[in-house]
Amino acid sequence: MQRVLSDQLPRYVGETVTVAGWVHRRRVLANVTFVIIRDRAGLLQVVTTGQEAPAEEQVVSVTGRVVRHGGVELVEPEFTVLAQAEAPPVELFRPTVKASLPVLLDHAAVTLRHPARRSVFAASAAAVRAFRAALDAQGFTEVFTPKIVGSATESGADVFELDYFGEKAYLAQSPQFYKQTMVGVFERVYEVGPVFRAEPHDTSRHLATYTSLDAELGFVEDHRDVMAVLTEVIRAMVAAVREHGRPVDLPGEIPTLHFRDALRMVGAPEDEPDLAPEHERALGEWAAGTHGSDFVFVEGYPMRKRPFYTHPQPDDPRWSNSFDLLFRGVELVTGGQRLHRYADYLAAVPDPEPLEGYLEAFRHGMPPHGGFAIGLERFMARVTGAANVRETVLFPRDLHRLAP
Amino acid sequence: MQRVLSDQLPRYVGETVTVAGWVHRRRVLANVTFVIIRDRAGLLQVVTTGQEAPAEEQVVSVTGRVVRHGGVELVEPEFTVLAQAEAPPVELFRPTVKASLPVLLDHAAVTLRHPARRSVFAASAAAVRAFRAALDAQGFTEVFTPKIVGSATESGADVFELDYFGEKAYLAQSPQFYKQTMVGVFERVYEVGPVFRAEPHDTSRHLATYTSLDAELGFVEDHRDVMAVLTEVIRAMVAAVREHGRPVDLPGEIPTLHFRDALRMVGAPEDEPDLAPEHERALGEWAAGTHGSDFVFVEGYPMRKRPFYTHPQPDDPRWSNSFDLLFRGVELVTGGQRLHRYADYLAAVPDPEPLEGYLEAFRHGMPPHGGFAIGLERFMARVTGAANVRETVLFPRDLHRLAP
Repeated sequence: MQRVLSDQLPRYVGETVTVAGWVHRRRVLANVTFVIIRDRAGLLQVVTTGQEAPAEEQVVSVTGRVVRHGGVELVEPEFTVLAQAEAPPVELFRPTVKASLPVLLDHAAVTLRHPARRSVFAASAAAVRAFRAALDAQGFTEVFTPKIVGSATESGADVFELDYFGEKAYLAQSPQFYKQTMVGVFERVYEVGPVFRAEPHDTSRHLATYTSLDAELGFVEDHRDVMAVLTEVIRAMVAAVREHGRPVDLPGEIPTLHFRDALRMVGAPEDEPDLAPEHERALGEWAAGTHGSDFVFVEGYPMRKRPFYTHPQPDDPRWSNSFDLLFRGVELVTGGQRLHRYADYLAAVPDPEPLEGYLEAFRHGMPPHGGFAIGLERFMARVTGAANVRETVLFPRDLHRLAP
Repeated sequence: MQRVLSDQLPRYVGETVTVAGWVHRRRVLANVTFVIIRDRAGLLQVVTTGQEAPAEEQVVSVTGRVVRHGGVELVEPEFTVLAQAEAPPVELFRPTVKASLPVLLDHAAVTLRHPARRSVFAASAAAVRAFRAALDAQGFTEVFTPKIVGSATESGADVFELDYFGEKAYLAQSPQFYKQTMVGVFERVYEVGPVFRAEPHDTSRHLATYTSLDAELGFVEDHRDVMAVLTEVIRAMVAAVREHGRPVDLPGEIPTLHFRDALRMVGAPEDEPDLAPEHERALGEWAAGTHGSDFVFVEGYPMRKRPFYTHPQPDDPRWSNSFDLLFRGVELVTGGQRLHRYADYLAAVPDPEPLEGYLEAFRHGMPPHGGFAIGLERFMARVTGAANVRETVLFPRDLHRLAP
């Protein structure tokens, strides 16, 4: 008999159908037993009298009659156990998972089955799909660039080293150089993939590897064109997570401050080179309070704090044509316009030799361009209000965690 | 003035517009100069008399009048050079790239701009989009699983070792264990991502890292359910590359042979444990000749040649519920039904300890399931008829190549 999913059950009232899934909860009362079945579409209730019912996390198929009784439920069931199960390490039928973060992560194979845990990653998948769809609609091409590289890319620090057939190699900290190079081929590109940071920090914000949503586009006037594309991408991602029951405030336009004015607004000294976490929080509160926005752009960060490929602000080269996008008071995206002239790279790079393959793109003509990178887990942490970014990774990797 | 793309030019006949791109070719004749501009939408011709025109690969914007003259072209142009360019290492305006594979790859930043090279990766991106769309439509959820793992997964061989904060770690050879685990959470999952194989082989088929299109689904009857989903995925991918001018023959049903019969058909001894490349070629010719199909399924491979998680064929456990899908006579996909009972894993795994996180999923109930993995580059190599799989990777990595 064709399997019916839990959310299709109302169509079959009065009929006999077969459902399948995990026993989410079994409640044995004096004269009746309630068995909640969990499948990929949700939960459904089976009611049985007398007969022995399978215990939690057993995988079963159930054939029974669909009746309307308040909601829709299955009665007169015949259970077939497809796979036995030992009792799970945490009770998955509770409304929230009662476990510490280490227990949650150590037993991810099972704890991720909890509807509240699962829903984070369903929303995350929807956000990634929205990221791609928004860029596909604007003429972007998806690319896949190397994760093993011959020279440490953006900086020599925090890089994982690797034995590559007897040579030293490194895990790519970002697709930055490759996505810029690909602007020379496709003008507009994006990549969704892992990036690797040997972060020696043990905080609630740091991961050793995460999913980076990267985009880069050519023929821009300046970084404002990049911010406009990013705004559309964020709008699509926000719409996607809203459909998964995660409200986010995003007005028609994202408020934008120059770095200089942002410092002034939060009462920081005017020679501060970067925004401290408490400054970012204050700016987030300002954006929420005055613009009803969970997002705020800060543009024009000082050149001395941005990477070498950053384009300066034409009218005042102390500042840059770069930006951060803060989401609920935390940096979510870094982006900006890049240098595009070969001569500018030769002036900016102390040793061009290890960057030869990258610089070749500029030697042979690259348009004004820019881009951005969104940290997927950081986005989902803000969306869900997770205290620790690890809650938004299926199997996180950090200073102390390499399993499961 | 708003930029107009090359393929929009026919809409503007009689008007003055601005286009932008790279000088693809400049032909200086006695009284007239033809300049072909390349942008992300294609090529367009600019005709100028007298005025000096920019050389190949310069990045320019051009303002001129659109006239119909056979096709549509731009006349009375004003060129603005956005970025200078040195002459490219190979002539990009030739119909085909005249360069050896090493030159092609060494100068990928520039040679990928050639329309013939670029079109491979445009088709590839479309194929990946089709892969995802086909699975999204069937209730699959996208997942992102770790690329750094604590123990070598499928086999100890051909694995890249890594210094992970002073511990030994490895690059994941496949998402196999994680995608199975996630069947316990989402029932149906897919992942598009890099896999890493320290292949010591220097052949036209081997890469040290490639893009794997992985899927896994629960509540299957047997491997035939997996083959049915794969067939729909392949159908979508074939439709996508056809739209990019790459014909592929795929009938309504993909012919399927049991391994035993395949051996007989190609005249191999009946105790052969695997198909040799010449056997695969012969089966490819058979499928093309008798079924008009570029694809052929071989199912039932001997258990002794398949990984430990492979489900045996219930009526004869010498064979397995696994399959390969051959594309134009070369293995493209490996897949099958997996073991799903915890006891079966304990019997199949010599040392369960390093696999604890994986086995936990089975300990707590997993449905009958199976899946498959498609090598993206191998797919594109067959689609394009590339002699070497490296032609279908933007920046390949192999035994000898770690740059650009």
